[in-house]
Amino acid sequence: MQIIDGKATSLAIQDEIKEEVQRRVADGAKKPHLAAIIVGDNPASRAYVGHKIKACERVGFDSTLVELSENILEEQLLDEVQALNEDPAIDGFIVQLPLPDQIDAQRVLEAVLPSKDVDGFHPINAGNLSLGLPGFQPATPAGIIELLKRYSIETSGKHAVILGRSAIVGTPMTLLLSRNANPGNCTVTMCHSRTQNLDEITRSADILVAAIGRPHFVTPDMVKPGAVVIDVGINRIPDATKKSGTRLTGDVDAEGLSDVDGHITPVPGGVGPMTIAMLLKNTLDAAAQS
Amino acid sequence: MQIIDGKATSLAIQDEIKEEVQRRVADGAKKPHLAAIIVGDNPASRAYVGHKIKACERVGFDSTLVELSENILEEQLLDEVQALNEDPAIDGFIVQLPLPDQIDAQRVLEAVLPSKDVDGFHPINAGNLSLGLPGFQPATPAGIIELLKRYSIETSGKHAVILGRSAIVGTPMTLLLSRNANPGNCTVTMCHSRTQNLDEITRSADILVAAIGRPHFVTPDMVKPGAVVIDVGINRIPDATKKSGTRLTGDVDAEGLSDVDGHITPVPGGVGPMTIAMLLKNTLDAAAQS
Repeated sequence: MQIIDGKATSLAIQDEIKEEVQRRVADGAKKPHLAAIIVGDNPASRAYVGHKIKACERVGFDSTLVELSENILEEQLLDEVQALNEDPAIDGFIVQLPLPDQIDAQRVLEAVLPSKDVDGFHPINAGNLSLGLPGFQPATPAGIIELLKRYSIETSGKHAVILGRSAIVGTPMTLLLSRNANPGNCTVTMCHSRTQNLDEITRSADILVAAIGRPHFVTPDMVKPGAVVIDVGINRIPDATKKSGTRLTGDVDAEGLSDVDGHITPVPGGVGPMTIAMLLKNTLDAAAQS
Repeated sequence: MQIIDGKATSLAIQDEIKEEVQRRVADGAKKPHLAAIIVGDNPASRAYVGHKIKACERVGFDSTLVELSENILEEQLLDEVQALNEDPAIDGFIVQLPLPDQIDAQRVLEAVLPSKDVDGFHPINAGNLSLGLPGFQPATPAGIIELLKRYSIETSGKHAVILGRSAIVGTPMTLLLSRNANPGNCTVTMCHSRTQNLDEITRSADILVAAIGRPHFVTPDMVKPGAVVIDVGINRIPDATKKSGTRLTGDVDAEGLSDVDGHITPVPGGVGPMTIAMLLKNTLDAAAQS
């Protein structure tokens, strides 16, 4: 399999964004400004948010990290969201998930002003995507579309099979790949835990997107030679050869596929870095519109 | 094929709605009130709106028809929408499509208050559907789900093939059939004009939804014996045996399928009448929430 290098592509996009920011600042505009709200001390969440803040620095954005206690009440969190909604200095912001149990995450996501919702999680942005209208798209599926585009992968008339129907990956991926656009115009089959004869379906895929969160779920016998395999999974599995005792792996048995003809996104270094690039791109767009 | 009788099912639902209205009125509530805006003199549009108003009378709703000139300006139409948004007597309303060329239909649909958007066309309602959240669903796909439910058709794990990717039928149908619900939990394949090997795909369908607007596009060789065929097409074709010289027909060659095992929705009398029932249901729900 040929590697689709998400890390290099992400860095190339970040370079383009950096140049665009410099151009705008030279024209007298202010720097784009991304804020992130993080609640509690979940190490994975802290790491994700840290990557995002660092990426802001790399491209010349301003950034603000709002750190809140694990014990915060929903109303207090909604007040913080409202403050960012109303702050003219902030172009876009995210609320890092998951949120603690005392908080209705959906209510918080719906409180974010759609024009600052650079994660694309607000129903109005989900609706715009579903209707083919402009709006912020969730970073992971948007990043996959960008990878297909930059690797000049033909999608029109191809059969895309999506494993997973989540609101942030599987569902928007289905919508984006099926729409009348380029990349797009795929015949798309959406699969999930109730799907029967899954192997047969995945073997007919020209483009296979795995977004189920199960390590090495996609085995070589499930993949058609020549297919483009997009591995969205980020799973931590035991690995005695690592100092930490664990390593990251995808939903696809990439090692088993190494001798098969086709393309694959590695884990790490595939889809993951693209989500950061697309978050920055959304923030750049938000700044241009504000 | 066994007939799925949309007309009888629609009338049964309308009876249920009528009883519910009587119950509510007996409890001191006001009657639900649906308004419809119609622009110009398109005979098909007038007929559709006429059916909707008549159905309101049948179930005991109040109704208001707002008839506007073909030459109305967009701003004037937006004022009419705003007036209905603000009128506490109106529970829900629709803007009959198509609209004349001088009007940006999307802008008008987005001006409808989401809580009165009983057609389910506002982006926030499309987004709620996409995210699996409560909201008004477009009447045609919601009507199909209701038919599958009332005919006790098993959908979990079945392969549904959707022909057409429109915002009001194909796309929401894909989302509703794939979600984790009953009816739902289908593996769904979304096909469109760019799909290759279409016949092969449709022959694998346990549930086949045709929503492309081409008379008799689905021929018997495209259908697996035992399949459930949902015909959304409403096409007017020449017919010298009719007084009008034309008749209505679907996207499916139903006559050719008559000896095949399975289920089919006829045209007319299948999906069409269900859209009216679901519009009334949405209006009843809007009244309950207001």
